[in-house]
Amino acid sequence: MRAEIVSVGDELLKGQRVNTNAAFMARALGGIGVPVDRIVACRDLEEEMSAVFAESLERADIVLVTGGLGPTRDDRTREAVQQLLGKGLELSEEAYANLAARMKQRGLEVTDSLRDQAMVIEGSHVIANTKGSAAGMIIECGEQFRNHYLVLMPGVPSEMIAMMELTVIPFFAALSRSVIRHTPVKTLGIGESTLAGMIVDIEDGLPEGTTLAYLPHAAGVSLMISTFGCDRELVDCDNRRVVDAIVGRAGKFIYATSEVTLEEVIGGMLSAGGLTVAVAESCTGGLVASRLTDVPGSSAYFLQGFVVYSNQAKERSLGVPGEMIEKFGAVSEEVARAMATGCLEKSGANFALSTTGIAGPAGGSPEKPVGMLCLAIAKKNSGVLLSRTLFMQGDRELNKLRFSEALLRELWECLRPGSSLSF
Amino acid sequence: MRAEIVSVGDELLKGQRVNTNAAFMARALGGIGVPVDRIVACRDLEEEMSAVFAESLERADIVLVTGGLGPTRDDRTREAVQQLLGKGLELSEEAYANLAARMKQRGLEVTDSLRDQAMVIEGSHVIANTKGSAAGMIIECGEQFRNHYLVLMPGVPSEMIAMMELTVIPFFAALSRSVIRHTPVKTLGIGESTLAGMIVDIEDGLPEGTTLAYLPHAAGVSLMISTFGCDRELVDCDNRRVVDAIVGRAGKFIYATSEVTLEEVIGGMLSAGGLTVAVAESCTGGLVASRLTDVPGSSAYFLQGFVVYSNQAKERSLGVPGEMIEKFGAVSEEVARAMATGCLEKSGANFALSTTGIAGPAGGSPEKPVGMLCLAIAKKNSGVLLSRTLFMQGDRELNKLRFSEALLRELWECLRPGSSLSF
Repeated sequence: MRAEIVSVGDELLKGQRVNTNAAFMARALGGIGVPVDRIVACRDLEEEMSAVFAESLERADIVLVTGGLGPTRDDRTREAVQQLLGKGLELSEEAYANLAARMKQRGLEVTDSLRDQAMVIEGSHVIANTKGSAAGMIIECGEQFRNHYLVLMPGVPSEMIAMMELTVIPFFAALSRSVIRHTPVKTLGIGESTLAGMIVDIEDGLPEGTTLAYLPHAAGVSLMISTFGCDRELVDCDNRRVVDAIVGRAGKFIYATSEVTLEEVIGGMLSAGGLTVAVAESCTGGLVASRLTDVPGSSAYFLQGFVVYSNQAKERSLGVPGEMIEKFGAVSEEVARAMATGCLEKSGANFALSTTGIAGPAGGSPEKPVGMLCLAIAKKNSGVLLSRTLFMQGDRELNKLRFSEALLRELWECLRPGSSLSF
Repeated sequence: MRAEIVSVGDELLKGQRVNTNAAFMARALGGIGVPVDRIVACRDLEEEMSAVFAESLERADIVLVTGGLGPTRDDRTREAVQQLLGKGLELSEEAYANLAARMKQRGLEVTDSLRDQAMVIEGSHVIANTKGSAAGMIIECGEQFRNHYLVLMPGVPSEMIAMMELTVIPFFAALSRSVIRHTPVKTLGIGESTLAGMIVDIEDGLPEGTTLAYLPHAAGVSLMISTFGCDRELVDCDNRRVVDAIVGRAGKFIYATSEVTLEEVIGGMLSAGGLTVAVAESCTGGLVASRLTDVPGSSAYFLQGFVVYSNQAKERSLGVPGEMIEKFGAVSEEVARAMATGCLEKSGANFALSTTGIAGPAGGSPEKPVGMLCLAIAKKNSGVLLSRTLFMQGDRELNKLRFSEALLRELWECLRPGSSLSF
């Protein structure tokens, strides 16, 4: 079975919304061995939707559609499907009961207009909406479309995600017989071309059914090794062999071979060592603390963060000497080191990290340009382990992200088994 | 002129990457009056790409393609275009010079393989790549495709964005004669259905060429009013009339009618009043500070943040009494108020904000469930202005986002002209 995704909504075509729904659905389908061959975003015009649905249903066994099921007048998906399949609408008692219960729960009146929202394509399998109002539908399209499936879901991400997890994925998992296995190989501190050069022969010898993709992102590049087949054991084995070969070649740049973030990996290392961390941030403005605390359970190792934007805050909260700031400037390795030691002292953590730099767009100078970062890491009983000055290029938000990534990368290096710094 | 976008790359179809490029391109084209009718993501197979390019070129005057121009072997876009248009490749001296300069700048050797990367479709207008290696191309497709344009760009966002801004948009702006005007209406604290009910007659009476879209997001709903036409004055006037009508009806829920973020609006209010702010965060873990400091120039009003995750940090950094934490629990309005007053004192800011809550997934109880937030705002010389307890539903990251949004919303309310709290 193969799938396509159709995302309905002018807001996508105007660029007012990024299509995160399609990425989620593609990952979910991949997990049950159903590859996605095409993703189409189209306008919410009935004629156009009907045409796009028909094209996708010609090619794909399963067509997932999101958007256009809500109560407002730009919601025309049901009408487009009626037109395409020549089917009518019927009241879903189940959807109506859900709607009425939601209204009552919020202390609102149950009005007749609710019936409109509970109307579904006749003969469809209703997908309960546990997070909102509009019901979803799984529709068998009959001989006209070689019994392919059309699935309608709302465009609100939380509603769609719940429907996928509770109903759609279990439904198609039962029908699918192929298997797919994706393994990410996440790297740090190496560029796309250099990495490609290191593993060229592995790429040359990929087993049948296995592909290798490069995923450059703001702070580095990741690989994705995907294997597709019918035999789970064989698929897993082929996939594992390629991943192992890459790890053997480029291991020192690889921080994970699973879907974890750098902050999760670091959290795992800290937890395993019974270590704690605190951060002192100027130019990253709380982003490092926020990333570290995105990890469930991070309260076990993240003690405290100081966002010291003003010079006065650096002095008062971390004890950075005013004369030092005056002499070297707030953006200097000296101040980064003093911030890290001050943070170590105030927090009592095992590791203290610091950033000071120029995120932009203003505040740069020829000597200290926008994109300049000074960072430091200090360790209990050892003092400052390292400090660095780096230069990045980006707008303010991208600089903040790259600054935070650079700092976390240094911490990761310190925590690696065998690091000269950590043990 | 109308456009379509084709995004090439298996990573999009596997859901490993979200298609942010398409949204950017759609917005950029919209700005010069070129609406996008369809966005297609397809696999990096030559045959399939050729077919998709041909379909889009049939319908649209301009087809923008991203991806598949890099040096690795899954980069097949040039080959697909050669096949479709029956054109060969030629060396772009300009692209080659750019590549060689980049290599030298990084201290790398200039090898023959660079020539491959500098090959472009013959007769195309080369788009310089100021941020990376692969050259872009604007190709006039000839009579076969009614002289429609095919534009090839790399998939790396920073490279594509620079190409759009420096070359592609100026090129097509000179050719386009229609105008489009989008105005966002950004709201807080009102749901989609309620808002739709408030403005139903405005929606009924939209002038010809004007559309109204609902954009629900994690923390509320925004509207987008779009007007399309040939006469800039008329387009602007129609658009403005609808926006004004909505503001007249729902003004108290509206924080902006332009593309600004809530944190930018708040920053503007603080700057205008010569006011400063500091934050004390537990459950939001630095996210509020990070959002406030995403705004260029925020150092003028953002003094300091305290990320006090542990109870000890709450006591030591903010002077929250240990007995209070013991008696009411760290997640309580009492502690939120003490955090805010402590933060006010330590920072010397005009406003101090605080959050304490349970982001999850663990740590909840029947009395204090996951998603519970206590927040407070204190003001210099006035003490605690308000404290609230709210309940949200989401995973850890969504909860953090909604918590931060709730806190910023309260601050926005305090800062509004006429607020009983601020003046």
